[in-house]
Amino acid sequence: MIRFDNDYTEGAHPLILEALMKTNTEQLPGYGMDDYCKIAADHIKRHCDNENIDVHFMVGGTQANTTIISSILRPHQAVIAADSGHIAVHETGAIESTGHKVLELPNTQGKISAEQIESYVQNHWDDPTHEHIPQPKLVYISQPTESGTLYSKQEIKAIHDVCQARNLYFMIDGARLGYGMVSKTNDVSLNDLTNLCDVFYIGGTKVGAMFGEAIVISHETIKEDFRYIMKQRGGMLAKGRFLGLQFKVLFEEDLYFEISKHAVQMAELLLSAFKAKGIALKYESPTNQIFPILPEDKIKTLNEKYSFYTWEDAGDGNKVVRICTSWSTREEDIKAFIADL
Amino acid sequence: MIRFDNDYTEGAHPLILEALMKTNTEQLPGYGMDDYCKIAADHIKRHCDNENIDVHFMVGGTQANTTIISSILRPHQAVIAADSGHIAVHETGAIESTGHKVLELPNTQGKISAEQIESYVQNHWDDPTHEHIPQPKLVYISQPTESGTLYSKQEIKAIHDVCQARNLYFMIDGARLGYGMVSKTNDVSLNDLTNLCDVFYIGGTKVGAMFGEAIVISHETIKEDFRYIMKQRGGMLAKGRFLGLQFKVLFEEDLYFEISKHAVQMAELLLSAFKAKGIALKYESPTNQIFPILPEDKIKTLNEKYSFYTWEDAGDGNKVVRICTSWSTREEDIKAFIADL
Amino acid sequence: MIRFDNDYTEGAHPLILEALMKTNTEQLPGYGMDDYCKIAADHIKRHCDNENIDVHFMVGGTQANTTIISSILRPHQAVIAADSGHIAVHETGAIESTGHKVLELPNTQGKISAEQIESYVQNHWDDPTHEHIPQPKLVYISQPTESGTLYSKQEIKAIHDVCQARNLYFMIDGARLGYGMVSKTNDVSLNDLTNLCDVFYIGGTKVGAMFGEAIVISHETIKEDFRYIMKQRGGMLAKGRFLGLQFKVLFEEDLYFEISKHAVQMAELLLSAFKAKGIALKYESPTNQIFPILPEDKIKTLNEKYSFYTWEDAGDGNKVVRICTSWSTREEDIKAFIADL
Amino acid sequence: MIRFDNDYTEGAHPLILEALMKTNTEQLPGYGMDDYCKIAADHIKRHCDNENIDVHFMVGGTQANTTIISSILRPHQAVIAADSGHIAVHETGAIESTGHKVLELPNTQGKISAEQIESYVQNHWDDPTHEHIPQPKLVYISQPTESGTLYSKQEIKAIHDVCQARNLYFMIDGARLGYGMVSKTNDVSLNDLTNLCDVFYIGGTKVGAMFGEAIVISHETIKEDFRYIMKQRGGMLAKGRFLGLQFKVLFEEDLYFEISKHAVQMAELLLSAFKAKGIALKYESPTNQIFPILPEDKIKTLNEKYSFYTWEDAGDGNKVVRICTSWSTREEDIKAFIADL
Repeated sequence: MIRFDNDYTEGAHPLILEALMKTNTEQLPGYGMDDYCKIAADHIKRHCDNENIDVHFMVGGTQANTTIISSILRPHQAVIAADSGHIAVHETGAIESTGHKVLELPNTQGKISAEQIESYVQNHWDDPTHEHIPQPKLVYISQPTESGTLYSKQEIKAIHDVCQARNLYFMIDGARLGYGMVSKTNDVSLNDLTNLCDVFYIGGTKVGAMFGEAIVISHETIKEDFRYIMKQRGGMLAKGRFLGLQFKVLFEEDLYFEISKHAVQMAELLLSAFKAKGIALKYESPTNQIFPILPEDKIKTLNEKYSFYTWEDAGDGNKVVRICTSWSTREEDIKAFIADL
Repeated sequence: MIRFDNDYTEGAHPLILEALMKTNTEQLPGYGMDDYCKIAADHIKRHCDNENIDVHFMVGGTQANTTIISSILRPHQAVIAADSGHIAVHETGAIESTGHKVLELPNTQGKISAEQIESYVQNHWDDPTHEHIPQPKLVYISQPTESGTLYSKQEIKAIHDVCQARNLYFMIDGARLGYGMVSKTNDVSLNDLTNLCDVFYIGGTKVGAMFGEAIVISHETIKEDFRYIMKQRGGMLAKGRFLGLQFKVLFEEDLYFEISKHAVQMAELLLSAFKAKGIALKYESPTNQIFPILPEDKIKTLNEKYSFYTWEDAGDGNKVVRICTSWSTREEDIKAFIADL
Repeated sequence: MIRFDNDYTEGAHPLILEALMKTNTEQLPGYGMDDYCKIAADHIKRHCDNENIDVHFMVGGTQANTTIISSILRPHQAVIAADSGHIAVHETGAIESTGHKVLELPNTQGKISAEQIESYVQNHWDDPTHEHIPQPKLVYISQPTESGTLYSKQEIKAIHDVCQARNLYFMIDGARLGYGMVSKTNDVSLNDLTNLCDVFYIGGTKVGAMFGEAIVISHETIKEDFRYIMKQRGGMLAKGRFLGLQFKVLFEEDLYFEISKHAVQMAELLLSAFKAKGIALKYESPTNQIFPILPEDKIKTLNEKYSFYTWEDAGDGNKVVRICTSWSTREEDIKAFIADL
Repeated sequence: MIRFDNDYTEGAHPLILEALMKTNTEQLPGYGMDDYCKIAADHIKRHCDNENIDVHFMVGGTQANTTIISSILRPHQAVIAADSGHIAVHETGAIESTGHKVLELPNTQGKISAEQIESYVQNHWDDPTHEHIPQPKLVYISQPTESGTLYSKQEIKAIHDVCQARNLYFMIDGARLGYGMVSKTNDVSLNDLTNLCDVFYIGGTKVGAMFGEAIVISHETIKEDFRYIMKQRGGMLAKGRFLGLQFKVLFEEDLYFEISKHAVQMAELLLSAFKAKGIALKYESPTNQIFPILPEDKIKTLNEKYSFYTWEDAGDGNKVVRICTSWSTREEDIKAFIADL
């Protein structure tokens, strides 16, 4: 079985394993106070071209989301997200478990717009009974989105502006950020993110690490006491060195971006093949997830050799499926798949 | 600096790293549904000599504690623990963050007794206003305790009996379980644990793994939907293979116990040295943590070469310190320390 | 200003105040342990024709909803409600504040159907990643709904059947239950409610009491320890006598239903007038809330003498408004309003 | 049975009932937006001699405590209280249910001192692992305490100063504030409270009201969005008029203080009698709760005619009991009790 289910089917990039081997016998302090965490944070600051950020490392995305969101909101406040956003649909109500409602706006190609947010917030404050409704206080988007699409710099800037005007916080879930950063259509830099949102994270789990997300905080209020909340939520890894070390390997030079680029190139091969065969795509994704619409019998045949998710029904005996490439996808597997298509 | 701060100063056992390298390019399903998790669970069932248990893997102890406890208790129910218990003192209020009070009983050598629990529960139900007080419903102990001491089988059986009589759940935090299992004074087997408590975990983080705790559930009610709650609490590792693989290595034969034994032997060397020098010990620990009482100036001198925790004041210019050995402690470091003592 | 804003614009029914005066100097135990609470519960059991229920009194609806829902659900479980349900839209995220997601289904005339619930639950269990999604475990409906409409006995029975088949709990918010019970179209008795759902409440606040909701529990599991959770959520009134006394007055004979009937008769007068004038109604409400569609200038004129809520936009310069009658509505005010229409 | 169990055994002060009767048919907006709430708030501001405070009305003390505390604290922060404090012992873990640990300091005569708080906070920040421990951020005291004792102005000022120096919030639970204010030994004015703490409440439930606590907020941060959180916690009474009206009656002149004075005078009669008979008192209470130490057989005899709480064991066949007077205690009952003593 060749797996295109997701971008975490294989272990970790060999350079990461090599670094683990090399440093294994070093005695280091725990809980992220070791030098590798510090060095990794410095590399990320350099890539962000911004010294005035805090960098923390956590194991996974749900952990990162609940820690960030619960650290920001007061009890009556809520987070705005696309109805397709990861926190809205795929974290077993983790955000609600911290006491906060996810206010779901209808997505377009996985995205929400500054206009939608502005309108929602305006309606909240216009309602004479707004004290009976959760107060929108934070905007959550994913870059790339769960549909593989990308926000342009202009779109992110527009959301940033609404947040400034409306006194909202703005966070970006970058679980697949690498695959977005290297996409041909991307015009958003890491530095832009540090300026345009209050907190975001750089996903490692799906981009070559064993595990790990690097949280980047720009907003002074969110920086305060963040480590307490990481600990409380079970998100402070005892052997934090393994987080620091992995991000050191990914960011001391450009490994993170190089391996992301490979995944996107593999996706582009698939895209070309689908287009050549006249197969429609549900989402206009320029990243590592692609969503062709295939007949059910074709899916069945392909599933004999290849695994991937059936995403949603498309009517007339067709389904949208998701094919996911990654840093570890082999070109020969892509070619075999295209041949079998 | 030679570190005796804790048992997670070094990386992971070399056989674990080797297994990671070997299996790195295998494509596997995520979230603990891979074969390594299954195999590791089977090994643990075999070591427990009990087929009728569920085994789940989580990254860390605070995660494990909050997931287990919040999965068991209804909103008005509380967990009984020693006032020195990890959930009472060192998890940033993680249990309270899930809505439940930790009912702290005074410890003796890190332990609480069946009598204390019985008495507390009796008082609760005798109080005519007991509905105004959190209801005790779960007992939490650590084996070994945070003071390095061990519960005997008789003590655990007595707590089990109170729990049965009083309709309480019983959980055991085994973050350092290996170091307890191999202690000369231990008479509690893994099989005993599956029979005498409802849920416990086998710590990996502090016993040679990169990270990871293996949760063993005997009670049918706790088994139900456990994975939902793991996911909600951010505790379901995407690349769950890394958890399965590590516990496979530790438990396919007896590695877990062998490396634990090494740590305890190193601790025994220290113990003998302390006793030979007439240095008093705060706790009667037969495991890998020892708590000598040392004069402050002696601590200062030792700290130039060795790091360890100052645990509490002992009066008259003395302090209790904690020296922690581990699977990775080198005998030469122990000897050097003894010499410098 | 004549107020049709809601059904709690005036104080309490005179017989309630009279009873308060008469019993004021009696010395009674607190927290609902007084005889009036017991007597009131007995009256309610008699009206329900069911001895096997527990009755508790709480001050308000949001309190009742959070207490009931949080007492039922485990952390990963969620409550299904109409997207127009009170818990979904008008309680400042109170349910989420207890850790649980509200799963909103699109309403039809304020209602959801057994088919919608069945389909949602089926989809949940069909999804191979359902552990990543909150588990539906409880169904919440309001009778009458927030749109004034009523579920028929057949509809409630159908939901009950789905809940039985799918192992779901079923609760009914009866904040305005009286106005539903006496509606001409109603075919659901209190006894039916005790058999068809697991817990419901009989609203007092909106039906002539100063405050208070009588919670009726049929399901054995929900009965257990309910008072602990009432206390924890701040919902156990110290002078519980005031709750018992009010419900005693309302239910020792038929006062609750008589005053409800008055409100519905007043609403029927308005309905006839709207129909006579060809004014369309947004919802087919046979209870005490009616929702005519009026031109904005007409609303403006009426608002000079009468207060009521503007509910939603209806296009073309029209708005849906809500006119609410109550136990205390004066017929002369209704007639004046009709004349001014 | 003559009840000295507590200060809420009877209904409400007759003037309150009279006011309810008089205003019953007025049509008023809900949720505390009516004129009576405004007028009552103005009276309280006048009594506090401070225009720069916000006043909100809630039904009960547990509600008030959870609303205030959860509105102030971030997830990792905790509240310091006496181990005898109401939130520590008698609210079914309501504070923990909002996610926050109660840090219990040992009480002396029901009180904690500025020195204890300073020392606790110093220890927190001195601990190198303080991120693993809940952060103290709020101090909670009761005035009078649960033991009937009073903090002097100097003691409150000292706590205020520690809070200022240590960046802590300071709240005072005044469930029985009236009985403290009129005590002969009291030197703390309402105005002092508005200056020395950030938020306190004036208890109505135990001082002649049917129910209700008036929350007085001085700190600007706590003022923000307070009503949202009241609503979320089920603490915004639909017919808020009943809260406003009661506090209007109590504070438009000096009724609150006059009826408090009566209760304290009754307690003083008892105190004199106990002292005359050489009966020891457990706590030096100058307010409406007194705690004599009585032999068990004497308690048994008294309980045939009088109800009161057995508070704790005093050894040698003696028990501490609590006798509670109130605004409604009849002098003849006190005299009968003394005679029967």
